Amino acid sequence: MDYRFSQSLEGFQSSAVRDILKLTQGKSIISFAGGLPAEEHFPMQAVGEAVERVLAQGCSALQYGLTEGYLPLRESLSGRMARKGMRVKPEEMILTTGSQQAIDLLSRIYIDPGEVILVERPTYLAALQVFQARGARIVSVESDHDGMNLDDLAAKIAQHAPKMVYVTPTFSNPAGKVWSLERRKGLLEQCLRANVLILEDDPYGELQFEEGERYASIFSLYGEAKGNPVVYTSTFSKIVAPGLRTGWAIGDSEVIRNMAKAKQAADLHSSTMDQMTLYQLLEHFDIDAHIDVIRSDYKQRMKLMASLLREQGWEGVSWLEPKGGMFFWVELPQGVKAEDLLRLAVEEGVAFVPGSSFYAGDPAYNTMRMNYTHSDADTMRVGMNRLAAAVEKYRAVRAAAI
Amino acid sequence: MDYRFSQSLEGFQSSAVRDILKLTQGKSIISFAGGLPAEEHFPMQAVGEAVERVLAQGCSALQYGLTEGYLPLRESLSGRMARKGMRVKPEEMILTTGSQQAIDLLSRIYIDPGEVILVERPTYLAALQVFQARGARIVSVESDHDGMNLDDLAAKIAQHAPKMVYVTPTFSNPAGKVWSLERRKGLLEQCLRANVLILEDDPYGELQFEEGERYASIFSLYGEAKGNPVVYTSTFSKIVAPGLRTGWAIGDSEVIRNMAKAKQAADLHSSTMDQMTLYQLLEHFDIDAHIDVIRSDYKQRMKLMASLLREQGWEGVSWLEPKGGMFFWVELPQGVKAEDLLRLAVEEGVAFVPGSSFYAGDPAYNTMRMNYTHSDADTMRVGMNRLAAAVEKYRAVRAAAI
Repeated sequence: MDYRFSQSLEGFQSSAVRDILKLTQGKSIISFAGGLPAEEHFPMQAVGEAVERVLAQGCSALQYGLTEGYLPLRESLSGRMARKGMRVKPEEMILTTGSQQAIDLLSRIYIDPGEVILVERPTYLAALQVFQARGARIVSVESDHDGMNLDDLAAKIAQHAPKMVYVTPTFSNPAGKVWSLERRKGLLEQCLRANVLILEDDPYGELQFEEGERYASIFSLYGEAKGNPVVYTSTFSKIVAPGLRTGWAIGDSEVIRNMAKAKQAADLHSSTMDQMTLYQLLEHFDIDAHIDVIRSDYKQRMKLMASLLREQGWEGVSWLEPKGGMFFWVELPQGVKAEDLLRLAVEEGVAFVPGSSFYAGDPAYNTMRMNYTHSDADTMRVGMNRLAAAVEKYRAVRAAAI
Repeated sequence: MDYRFSQSLEGFQSSAVRDILKLTQGKSIISFAGGLPAEEHFPMQAVGEAVERVLAQGCSALQYGLTEGYLPLRESLSGRMARKGMRVKPEEMILTTGSQQAIDLLSRIYIDPGEVILVERPTYLAALQVFQARGARIVSVESDHDGMNLDDLAAKIAQHAPKMVYVTPTFSNPAGKVWSLERRKGLLEQCLRANVLILEDDPYGELQFEEGERYASIFSLYGEAKGNPVVYTSTFSKIVAPGLRTGWAIGDSEVIRNMAKAKQAADLHSSTMDQMTLYQLLEHFDIDAHIDVIRSDYKQRMKLMASLLREQGWEGVSWLEPKGGMFFWVELPQGVKAEDLLRLAVEEGVAFVPGSSFYAGDPAYNTMRMNYTHSDADTMRVGMNRLAAAVEKYRAVRAAAI
């Protein structure tokens, strides 16, 4: 048999991050690569109790369910969203297999091959994969610490008449930055004027390190779901656990209804057990107190990584201290290739993700993404020593400055 | 905001079956419509014990997992497959969110818009939705009680140079039939010769009513996974429970690897909890004895529905007594429109699925699909009386013979 795969397969490039994860599974490599949450914070007991409650309710937990998702969980999540200024009815929300699926479903109902999607520079790798597989033309908008450059955005909208803009405005992956309110408003205004849909991806918003600061979602700046140019997506992966594979998307009911049609074809619906378990968890577990614990621990880990990075005294290496989320985005000196460094690092027993994977085009090869949420303090110290050894080797081989 | 949805959205027609399910949820309508398994057979206690074991193992049940699926479950399933003559290594298998997702993933990596897929007549509705959304041209092959007509298959292969053939050869949905061995071999030979991929969908194969009979899968007729023109998919939905949303696909490792790439973009991976729970279930629960219980109960239900149908003495109405699976496929007299009958039936408090939904083109409007696995004996009797009342009304209104 001579298999003849589809052209769109070319878009489905395997994720470098996941390929590295695969290589490191079961080995003694310390990984700053993946975007894994700390397992110590998985609320095992609360999940166990929630499952017990679900199974005690009877058989419905194991039966087919609604494509849009378990209604009580949607209602409960609507309450959480409302407290963040996002008022939605259950029919303006769909539950998905992680927020990754929300990105995929929206692309399937909104993007035709050849249409343009604008993205940040850099941006989330697995969103790029979805857009590439749809055959979209992906165009980067110049971005700095405060978000997309609004002049470049205006120019790119005028030049490309894009169908959609994809952004992660709060503690972005990979860059770890937060958009300013002005940039959020500017994006919303420009997209409203040009009739461009915004996909606001917010998996990390709850992992905020500064007390008191409030980052209004772009969705909330418009106000209501009806007619909102923003589809907002988030997930339980970072605040409860990723293995329960539950995310959600909110938007105008017409958009949500069409995403549900695509989901019928994709997988009928997501795990009933997981959705009912999460509903019971929200009912009987203080998730906000739990998030506070995670936040404070991740902040400590971030501070430790920052000080370990500083201690190295690497020349020409810079980074932004993240205000939340899971990643450091490190810029190496011009000319240094993070992919070459990774090869040496893996030999030393430590991994990270070369930043070049996060660009729609014209990648910055001298960048790397480092996760601080999955290593405890001792591991992080050992990992950083190994990375330092890799940098030494790199210098010796390349005679380059780091 | 003026939403501008993609052209492929047109392919995502909402499933009539699921729309009816939605209408009937929470109402006192007796439904012969859905393809729901009997909840009485969900192994609640065994699932509860399995979840306990999973959570006792620690945090990995809630962490991100491999896109290809939980390895011990793939290994365990390989053992089950081998006993059915399908020898596969773990890398020749991918776990999916129900077998629905296997259909979707394979379509995404194998089918480009405009390419031809051959299907049975009638065939599974939600597969048609996937193929339509991919922009495929769907062509029906004439089919009888023994499967596809091999002459028509040869003609359609010659005429359309199809990329793929989609079949449900064992207890099909909706027609409830079983392909003969000769037709299975004929399909395999023709597809091998013409280099056409076969997607063999087998969600119902275990629900066999006759002891002793063996229906060899088309996959097993080729022998090994390497170079096999068949991708075979099945699911736990009908033998354990659909709410755990776990199916699997087996095939050549290159095909499986590419399906995994598409799955990375689609949802990263399916529920870790569900996969680990099913693995523990297979380890500690006699699933074959469990399947025997389901089989014998479903056979009784099927026999009851057959006798209730016979009792009506409807003129010109015929059906095939299924040898397994979940459905009766009922042909009404020419000129009778099942959709009109459904409207009257819902007024009387009973639902079924009009058969017209199951055709790629030129539907037979005088057909209906009736599920017998989700109603107990009393409910089935009441439902059939309601259906009889609807038929009476139909006769009165249309002055038509049934």
